[in-house]
Amino acid sequence: MGDLLGVAVLGAGHMGADHIRRLDQVVSGARVAAVADPDRARAEAAVAGLDHVTVHTDPVAALDAPGVAAVLIASPAPAHEEALLAAFARRLPVLCEKPMVPDSAGALRIMEAELGAGRRLAQIGFMRRYDAEYRRLKALLDGGRLGRPLMLHCTHRNVSSPADFTSAMLINSSVSHEIDAARWLLGQELTAVTVLRPGPSAGAPGGLLDPQFALFETERGALVDVEVFVNCGFGYQVRCEAVCEAGSARIGDEHTMVVTTRGGARQEVAQDYLVRFAAAYDREVQAWVDATRRGEVTGPGAWDGYAASAVAEAGVRALETGQRVAVDLAPRPALYAGR
Amino acid sequence: MGDLLGVAVLGAGHMGADHIRRLDQVVSGARVAAVADPDRARAEAAVAGLDHVTVHTDPVAALDAPGVAAVLIASPAPAHEEALLAAFARRLPVLCEKPMVPDSAGALRIMEAELGAGRRLAQIGFMRRYDAEYRRLKALLDGGRLGRPLMLHCTHRNVSSPADFTSAMLINSSVSHEIDAARWLLGQELTAVTVLRPGPSAGAPGGLLDPQFALFETERGALVDVEVFVNCGFGYQVRCEAVCEAGSARIGDEHTMVVTTRGGARQEVAQDYLVRFAAAYDREVQAWVDATRRGEVTGPGAWDGYAASAVAEAGVRALETGQRVAVDLAPRPALYAGR
Amino acid sequence: MGDLLGVAVLGAGHMGADHIRRLDQVVSGARVAAVADPDRARAEAAVAGLDHVTVHTDPVAALDAPGVAAVLIASPAPAHEEALLAAFARRLPVLCEKPMVPDSAGALRIMEAELGAGRRLAQIGFMRRYDAEYRRLKALLDGGRLGRPLMLHCTHRNVSSPADFTSAMLINSSVSHEIDAARWLLGQELTAVTVLRPGPSAGAPGGLLDPQFALFETERGALVDVEVFVNCGFGYQVRCEAVCEAGSARIGDEHTMVVTTRGGARQEVAQDYLVRFAAAYDREVQAWVDATRRGEVTGPGAWDGYAASAVAEAGVRALETGQRVAVDLAPRPALYAGR
Amino acid sequence: MGDLLGVAVLGAGHMGADHIRRLDQVVSGARVAAVADPDRARAEAAVAGLDHVTVHTDPVAALDAPGVAAVLIASPAPAHEEALLAAFARRLPVLCEKPMVPDSAGALRIMEAELGAGRRLAQIGFMRRYDAEYRRLKALLDGGRLGRPLMLHCTHRNVSSPADFTSAMLINSSVSHEIDAARWLLGQELTAVTVLRPGPSAGAPGGLLDPQFALFETERGALVDVEVFVNCGFGYQVRCEAVCEAGSARIGDEHTMVVTTRGGARQEVAQDYLVRFAAAYDREVQAWVDATRRGEVTGPGAWDGYAASAVAEAGVRALETGQRVAVDLAPRPALYAGR
Repeated sequence: MGDLLGVAVLGAGHMGADHIRRLDQVVSGARVAAVADPDRARAEAAVAGLDHVTVHTDPVAALDAPGVAAVLIASPAPAHEEALLAAFARRLPVLCEKPMVPDSAGALRIMEAELGAGRRLAQIGFMRRYDAEYRRLKALLDGGRLGRPLMLHCTHRNVSSPADFTSAMLINSSVSHEIDAARWLLGQELTAVTVLRPGPSAGAPGGLLDPQFALFETERGALVDVEVFVNCGFGYQVRCEAVCEAGSARIGDEHTMVVTTRGGARQEVAQDYLVRFAAAYDREVQAWVDATRRGEVTGPGAWDGYAASAVAEAGVRALETGQRVAVDLAPRPALYAGR
Repeated sequence: MGDLLGVAVLGAGHMGADHIRRLDQVVSGARVAAVADPDRARAEAAVAGLDHVTVHTDPVAALDAPGVAAVLIASPAPAHEEALLAAFARRLPVLCEKPMVPDSAGALRIMEAELGAGRRLAQIGFMRRYDAEYRRLKALLDGGRLGRPLMLHCTHRNVSSPADFTSAMLINSSVSHEIDAARWLLGQELTAVTVLRPGPSAGAPGGLLDPQFALFETERGALVDVEVFVNCGFGYQVRCEAVCEAGSARIGDEHTMVVTTRGGARQEVAQDYLVRFAAAYDREVQAWVDATRRGEVTGPGAWDGYAASAVAEAGVRALETGQRVAVDLAPRPALYAGR
Repeated sequence: MGDLLGVAVLGAGHMGADHIRRLDQVVSGARVAAVADPDRARAEAAVAGLDHVTVHTDPVAALDAPGVAAVLIASPAPAHEEALLAAFARRLPVLCEKPMVPDSAGALRIMEAELGAGRRLAQIGFMRRYDAEYRRLKALLDGGRLGRPLMLHCTHRNVSSPADFTSAMLINSSVSHEIDAARWLLGQELTAVTVLRPGPSAGAPGGLLDPQFALFETERGALVDVEVFVNCGFGYQVRCEAVCEAGSARIGDEHTMVVTTRGGARQEVAQDYLVRFAAAYDREVQAWVDATRRGEVTGPGAWDGYAASAVAEAGVRALETGQRVAVDLAPRPALYAGR
Repeated sequence: MGDLLGVAVLGAGHMGADHIRRLDQVVSGARVAAVADPDRARAEAAVAGLDHVTVHTDPVAALDAPGVAAVLIASPAPAHEEALLAAFARRLPVLCEKPMVPDSAGALRIMEAELGAGRRLAQIGFMRRYDAEYRRLKALLDGGRLGRPLMLHCTHRNVSSPADFTSAMLINSSVSHEIDAARWLLGQELTAVTVLRPGPSAGAPGGLLDPQFALFETERGALVDVEVFVNCGFGYQVRCEAVCEAGSARIGDEHTMVVTTRGGARQEVAQDYLVRFAAAYDREVQAWVDATRRGEVTGPGAWDGYAASAVAEAGVRALETGQRVAVDLAPRPALYAGR
């Protein structure tokens, strides 16, 4: 087993358990070496049947377990900062689920710590960058054939939201995916945000402002609009149309088997992000394992985690105030230069 | 009213009544001058509210009614021959619903009579030639950009068939549309036909061989296959894919509003040919009125009616014998030269 | 010819000539009785070959020409007010191309005059209400199956704009179509508007703010966003997605023959509104002729023309100021009650 | 490395090299333990950079190499029989690329040898059974919601064929995929075959009968038609429409990013089967590795390889004779009972 990358997985909930399954059964070149969860029984259940795995309730102890050469953080966001700092202290490469940390102040501390380590160690889990359709769109935009991008029209719909979802979380949890995707697709920072609030859907839990419509301005004058609707009831839909000077490109339309019955011609719509983006998660973790084994960090990093936080915070203020809010971004350290 | 083309409509059933409505309310430049139906009450009902129309039970009397300058035959097929001959005798231009007459022997008599009149007078109601999608496909094929057509894959489905529909009628009533469309699209005669019979659908009335799969060979080596399924239960679907040396083109996919609900993304499918081809019928009759007022015949003629009959007869023999049957076509008279 | 509705067409430019052709060749039950254009030669050319038409340079003279029973106004917008008032004075039914008049103050005068006439006489040329896809969407929304509409996402793209097109015209000429369509689809007035200005496309003439992104709020809390891009270079695209509480519906995607060649699978995109909405114009004029012959007015009226003006004016102020601008709408007279 | 399944890969050509990459970089739970190719340099190149791999020119020697616990046969078809028999003798599980062996007589010998081994050891590389769309269609048909399948309409197009491709290979190499897919989707054996030959495309190499149109009858009366066109020039297209008693289902339409430019709206078409079916190959090999580690054989087996051969042989005779040819199938041994 010496050749396989030993990974400590922190967090054995829904997402953590899925990553454990992925590392064990899907991804090549890695194995689960340790798992940590405050709920030991949950951690043990997640690795049942796997050999050579140690189980911990303390995440830091998991980092020090035998065979651990890298860390995958899938614990709740408030636990990320401690885990990231501990990993950096051990110079362990990390794949950290989004959001990197709960706020931009914490994100600045993470960047500082990584700067202290003198090299990039963290990849943040913006898995859309690994989705085949997003990559195709990115390649098309970068190729320049359509000219400069002028607008991105985005749609982000969930069947329903978790019980504790707040109006702010439509921005800082859901739209944060579009924030990163827009930054990445356009190669530009977002500079201001406005959030509009149509009358809430009857399907939204009482008090939840759902749907919302967010507008982002970018440093070179593009416009990004996002419909976010987390209790739409009908499906998990993530779409993006890039409108450029010489054409437009659209991804994310439902493309499955067409079934014609008396009711008409019908195409299934994915109901869950783990279905829609299953392959993207697989590719993300495989790419991280491959890069880590080569000693590299190739994916979105701490700067991207920080920028997403800062934009989302401005978005929440825009939602609360009804005003356009400018994004206040710290200078980009040289370690994070390049796109 | 002197400027309007006065039309005698023969037959006031489903199709006749629809044409009367069309001439009155949709088409420009024409008016209904006379109507004939053995059932006088039905004829009167079909023209209720229209002025200057005479009502007849004898179709020939309708041809001689005041103001009649052209004839639209929408009576049952067995009545077509007498009506066509009477119109030719009066040198009246005719639009005759398909089939021109019930068999190819009768069709030869029609051609002979029209040859005797010395000029083309009849247009046959192959309305697909007036459908926007078919015309686009025809223009593409004629333009030559895709090279020589090698195959046509056709689908012809009805929700359900009339009570008295026979296995032979799948060929000589339903597929006759594809027979004409293929001849027109390819600019070639069909030379042989084979009909395969999958096990009948549980939805087909007892004894009806439904669906069927017909294969036509053409004089220059193209292949035309047609699925015909007249009790499919789910919709009226007419599709055609032309496979050529340098590309393929497909028409007839359902293209309507996309509605996404919990069940998935859904597009309505037309349930009836009067819906699917409503605009084609309108264009057909308008084109016939326009040409007739100019003294021309521009649409499919008696030769096309004859060829469709001859091919359909071979098809019925192929269905009955399970063998490939060659089409025996009379020589094409000079009057019908050209496409 | 006594039975046909005699129409005076005012204006013989691009649109007027097209309407003359439509009344003569497409529409049933009407004829062109008179035409007026300051350029007599242009007026004569537009009716060449038609009988029983008088040609005028003075529009009012055309209204008084023999056989005129209705008026179609296709002259430039500044000429509409005089023509409408003259028609009202003669109690002639009118189909008036949009915009009804150049500003909302004039629109109020038109309503006042029609109120003085004591009955509705004017239909305004918002032809999208006659497009098959828009009607299907309207029927779906009215049917209530999708629940309350929350958002409309609209796209309005032209290949290129006329030479004299200004930044304000993106709102008051192009988006005015969406303003009417949104009012009609939702059955609600628009109450406020914000216009965002992405960096202009390199394809836009110098100084033209193109594209723009307009946001409309409605009286019952729905949100309508419109991308307008009049020099997109790639096609004439008009799309609308209605997002409702229980589902979404989308119209306007390009749906034509699919041609597959080495370059991929391709669908043609309409390049011109007269192509995309050809059938809608035909249906609009036919519906107006039919209603007029019955003594009714069934289409969008002076109130709709006024409301579109008032919203568009607020939109232009929003564009100029960068601010959200409330729409100030006069009370709706009883004559215009109902949707 | 003890936990990983050591695989001997026989054949280091295009397909073998791709499988080596897949086992090394994509698939979880396996490693390449040995490789054999008559061309030693090619074998060495295919495993460059991998550790613990032995390189052989003799395939049997590779089976006996240290660490080999399973075999993946990707050598030319004539070499398969010897390799399968040697694997069976060693009771090694095998994944064998299609065709299993070049003819049905050899296929019977393979089944006999596996029967001698007393257990199933071979999986045949019909990778379409692992394609997401095919699996969705299979699940839909098995679920019974659409009723009994009546017809399958299939399309199989390649951009161009290899230099040595013969007319018979359109059936026994290309259509063999549809033969297996139809047997699997319908759960029925194919009983007769007819092959029609439209005039060859100008794009086909001299003498090659391309395209062809094959018709298969099944034991319970369904009909399967296949257009095969291996020099279509425009793309790699694999489509299937299942027409059932209560509806139809279609897979394989091109579903990628829609790019709209002046030319129209365009979707890319895959040019190569390794692109179109990349994920299916990954899933196939992963499923084989997973089942093998559990001591099971779950995929298509020697019976399926034999049946495909027998049907393809009948197809080639049908092509050569122009006649309908019945398929002569040996009785199915109990070892291969079940679907």
